[in-house]
Amino acid sequence: MGRLTPKSPVPSDIEIAQEAVPVPIVQVAEQLGVQSNELEQYGHMKAKVNLDVLKRLKDAPLGKYVVVAGITPTPLGEGKSTTTVGLCQALGAHLGRKAVGTVRQPSQGPTFGIKGGAAGGGYSQVVPMEEFNLHMTGDIHAITAANNLLAAALDVRMFHESTQKDEALFNRLCPKDKDGNMTFAPVMLRRLKKLGISKTNPADLTTEEKTKFARLDIDPKTITWKRVMDINDRFLRGITVGQGPQEKGQTRETGFDIAVASEIMAVLALATDFKDMRERLGRMVIGNSRAGEQVTADDLGIGGALMVLMKDALAPTLMQTLEETPILVHAGPFANIAHGNSSIIADRVALRLVGPEGFCVTEAGFGADIGMEKFMNIKCRSSGLTPDAVVIVATVRALKMHGGGAPVTAGKPLDHAYKSENLDLVTKGTCNLERHIKNAGKYGVPVVVALNRFASDTQAELDIIIKASKDAGATDAIVTEHHGKGGEGAVDLGNALIKACETKPKFDFLYPVDIPIKAKIEAIAKEMYGAAEVEFLPQAQKMAEEYERLGCDKLPICMAKTQYSFSADASQKGAPSGFTLPVRDLKVSLGAGFIVAYVGDIMLMPGLPTRPAFYEIDLDVDSGRIIGLS
Amino acid sequence: MGRLTPKSPVPSDIEIAQEAVPVPIVQVAEQLGVQSNELEQYGHMKAKVNLDVLKRLKDAPLGKYVVVAGITPTPLGEGKSTTTVGLCQALGAHLGRKAVGTVRQPSQGPTFGIKGGAAGGGYSQVVPMEEFNLHMTGDIHAITAANNLLAAALDVRMFHESTQKDEALFNRLCPKDKDGNMTFAPVMLRRLKKLGISKTNPADLTTEEKTKFARLDIDPKTITWKRVMDINDRFLRGITVGQGPQEKGQTRETGFDIAVASEIMAVLALATDFKDMRERLGRMVIGNSRAGEQVTADDLGIGGALMVLMKDALAPTLMQTLEETPILVHAGPFANIAHGNSSIIADRVALRLVGPEGFCVTEAGFGADIGMEKFMNIKCRSSGLTPDAVVIVATVRALKMHGGGAPVTAGKPLDHAYKSENLDLVTKGTCNLERHIKNAGKYGVPVVVALNRFASDTQAELDIIIKASKDAGATDAIVTEHHGKGGEGAVDLGNALIKACETKPKFDFLYPVDIPIKAKIEAIAKEMYGAAEVEFLPQAQKMAEEYERLGCDKLPICMAKTQYSFSADASQKGAPSGFTLPVRDLKVSLGAGFIVAYVGDIMLMPGLPTRPAFYEIDLDVDSGRIIGLS
Repeated sequence: MGRLTPKSPVPSDIEIAQEAVPVPIVQVAEQLGVQSNELEQYGHMKAKVNLDVLKRLKDAPLGKYVVVAGITPTPLGEGKSTTTVGLCQALGAHLGRKAVGTVRQPSQGPTFGIKGGAAGGGYSQVVPMEEFNLHMTGDIHAITAANNLLAAALDVRMFHESTQKDEALFNRLCPKDKDGNMTFAPVMLRRLKKLGISKTNPADLTTEEKTKFARLDIDPKTITWKRVMDINDRFLRGITVGQGPQEKGQTRETGFDIAVASEIMAVLALATDFKDMRERLGRMVIGNSRAGEQVTADDLGIGGALMVLMKDALAPTLMQTLEETPILVHAGPFANIAHGNSSIIADRVALRLVGPEGFCVTEAGFGADIGMEKFMNIKCRSSGLTPDAVVIVATVRALKMHGGGAPVTAGKPLDHAYKSENLDLVTKGTCNLERHIKNAGKYGVPVVVALNRFASDTQAELDIIIKASKDAGATDAIVTEHHGKGGEGAVDLGNALIKACETKPKFDFLYPVDIPIKAKIEAIAKEMYGAAEVEFLPQAQKMAEEYERLGCDKLPICMAKTQYSFSADASQKGAPSGFTLPVRDLKVSLGAGFIVAYVGDIMLMPGLPTRPAFYEIDLDVDSGRIIGLS
Repeated sequence: MGRLTPKSPVPSDIEIAQEAVPVPIVQVAEQLGVQSNELEQYGHMKAKVNLDVLKRLKDAPLGKYVVVAGITPTPLGEGKSTTTVGLCQALGAHLGRKAVGTVRQPSQGPTFGIKGGAAGGGYSQVVPMEEFNLHMTGDIHAITAANNLLAAALDVRMFHESTQKDEALFNRLCPKDKDGNMTFAPVMLRRLKKLGISKTNPADLTTEEKTKFARLDIDPKTITWKRVMDINDRFLRGITVGQGPQEKGQTRETGFDIAVASEIMAVLALATDFKDMRERLGRMVIGNSRAGEQVTADDLGIGGALMVLMKDALAPTLMQTLEETPILVHAGPFANIAHGNSSIIADRVALRLVGPEGFCVTEAGFGADIGMEKFMNIKCRSSGLTPDAVVIVATVRALKMHGGGAPVTAGKPLDHAYKSENLDLVTKGTCNLERHIKNAGKYGVPVVVALNRFASDTQAELDIIIKASKDAGATDAIVTEHHGKGGEGAVDLGNALIKACETKPKFDFLYPVDIPIKAKIEAIAKEMYGAAEVEFLPQAQKMAEEYERLGCDKLPICMAKTQYSFSADASQKGAPSGFTLPVRDLKVSLGAGFIVAYVGDIMLMPGLPTRPAFYEIDLDVDSGRIIGLS
């Protein structure tokens, strides 16, 4: 039963969020069946659910697993986060099902730039929105710390190697203890093993072995590891480091990405437990040696320290919706150079806690061609979990744009077509939704379409989309109003989903991982995007061969492509086909466990506009309340 | 009553810390009288005490206020943190007094470099040491985020100013709302006020006023604001930013400091409430305009956003000692470019909670010539609180070095003189302690000397120091053994302190703030350091005049001097006098509220050695326990 009393017209997101009086998070945890020793409170409104819960419930039956994806995004928005939250409110507060939404932690950077928060909208929000959008429980800060410690270790190692002879370097790496014996740190045994050296006493190594061990001989030109910061700081995109006088001229051109672009974020999202996380962190590649071998975090001796910095971050954070239902917030990898889905661990925790009649509803980033595809082929492959249903979110307005509606320009009034009935544009635009529905079907999973209703939508417009959805193979297509009404507005969607999940689908991946890299990319391009061909540009060609040589080609593919079109051309709305998809470059993320295929240029550090959002943000110093956050 | 059963010989710090079973922090809070609505748990072992407690107890009588300072530090260590913790254990667990230790949060960077943690030592430690040393409750991460958001805003503002004409710039800063009206954000009214413009409608400004308002015209050469990171990353000491193609050649040489060197850390330590913090953040200076006016965070429109990022950080974190007595951890400003003391808010919370029979024991960084001097003249001036007693920590070994003992070299055995009786070196070395005792007396505050005993100390050596201390004016000098015995080993010190605090001293500052900058520096140099003269080098001379012109000279002085000597020469042990103290440069920290006087070169970004401490650090993935942290 919901406790909302929605107003009309719907107030602003921040007004709704700040009027809400969330219950103590311990209460939400208790209702969900989390035990007190499994809960680490962070204030009264957030708590981490630690991994002990998975030990306790390791044999508990799983709930239904639902992934929310969207049509190809447009500037008009389709309301994917809002639907994820609203659907959980419907299931949990109106339909008597245990339901946990698993969502990504938003990057703090954009909060102060242009974009507002990412906690849903209207009467379907995660609260308190300030705590969701700022710092949360420090996971992104931990990623920043770990990522940048690795970067510092990398530059300083090159420096120490350049200023010391082999013997001195080895002796400093393995200093004598108080009894005068040299010992290897445990992490060093990993490097020795990689080098095929089975000796465990430093004194036993030959001169040649000492050199091999001590000299990573990193080729600066091959370094792919960058520093990160959770701030929109465009002046850090391209920088030169090492210009202090003590660094003796060892300068290097590099740059910062925004923190959520760190490979460690993808690792956090894909790790299944402490052990898996530790191994993934240790095998992250920072670049190559001059001899062409990959140099990893463990070669730098730092995999364990990274793990220690990330220990607490591995536990997902429990928050609540406006209707007091549970939300697990965890990880927020980019949906281009990473896989754009929240964590495996959060989903596992949710699925065990809700039980067989309950639901874990998770959201996939960007359009379904990207977010859902990566959910299926990357996330599910790592987790071993398979979905019971896909929800694809669409709106009349956005489909009109896919049907050829005028572009939307900031600051200019919305075109008339978006505000009144235009059956022609809707009819033409459904092709985008249809392709996403058919794509989902290729994994064997049933699809329910959620049509987020706007006041200007007409029944005739909605009917066209409903019919088209079903014709394309959707189990159902439901008009939803959770933005204005909360969970009550998504009860029909919830019921349709319960029905769609009645039988476990026979899931299949789109491609096996052991076929060649190019064949995997072609499978995605042709089956998901509608491409006729893939063109591998010389650098991509070269890297495909390189990764085969290094034996790290048996991994799923992570496409880095524009989210605004099925094709590589953001202006191609609708459902283009017959095009050639150019693949420019490849980069293996060995820790995350995927190969990124670059179709376009990807900007990994946003900037701030002339009038950033921070101008409005302040603290009411008398009440302690945050103002101006949106 | 203590619950420790100390072993002999004393195990390593990490062994003691990890064997301890701390009680839930809610229990520590309850015993201290913190109410549940005033407590924000961060897991089971840490909790923030929010500022509501100060509202509730605003009229409660204050406890005794004790500052722990040290002799001039040597590589042998004197045990100041250990004494702070051990003294609290004695007072709280053995002498029936409520006692809260208020200590600084350690920087995370050095934890992975050379230095181990900073949680005390032996049987006098803050636990859990892993949580104390890593992330804690995220305060330093919040400082990093705020500091760097300001840096991003600064560079991007210069960029937007360089690419837009006055009118366009003004129009973008004050965009039209949906009704077509331009409005100023509240923070903009601060800049308007500073410019002497009383209009509140953007449309009413003259063209000239619009230009004055919109164009900060920052002179890149004058920028003093740097980015920060809580990592020992020497390659960020000197960098060039803005080399990405989109930044159109607007490059700039700058660098990163370690996060605790941020002015925001000093602001956190000196702020007295939300309102004071907001004002301090807003008036921080980032550089000058080409016309020579100071440009502040509020000129950039960002003071409020910084405050919002720092909101949670303003509440101190409650942890516990090995004997379950309360410790408040809060802020950790450098003791050179900042004042090296933990926060005013933590001390206020502690003093109100412990009541008139209780104690707040706080630690001051570096030797007493620096940490205690700044405690008195900067921290107490901001807080209005005054100390009841000073504890000065010394050891026989360290005083031997001040008496002319051989230097200590890492990796070489300790000189014989430090391990066996040498009355001559002790007698010569007490001059250092004597000067610190006399210095404390200049504030009218009684001094108790704590002599941390080592096994090799002889009674004759100790007796020399005790006599010299009393002759120099100390109320008492007590031999302590809290490292090996916990609070029990500091019971005598506790009793001496209780006695010393029986009457409220008549406190006085060393200098008034309204005398000229140079006179204030001379007062410190002559009265505290024993200098005969101060030499103001041309840049310092110039800045003194500049700050008088700008009207920001009525602030206390924050000396940035080596901590290894009273003089500017780190090799001058003992109690040098008659020297000339060179002052190289001045820099006002308007947010912190002091003027930094640079005596030497101060390194604000440490580096990593060839074999950093991180090699030993890992997670036991089965137990989830951190290993190798020291």
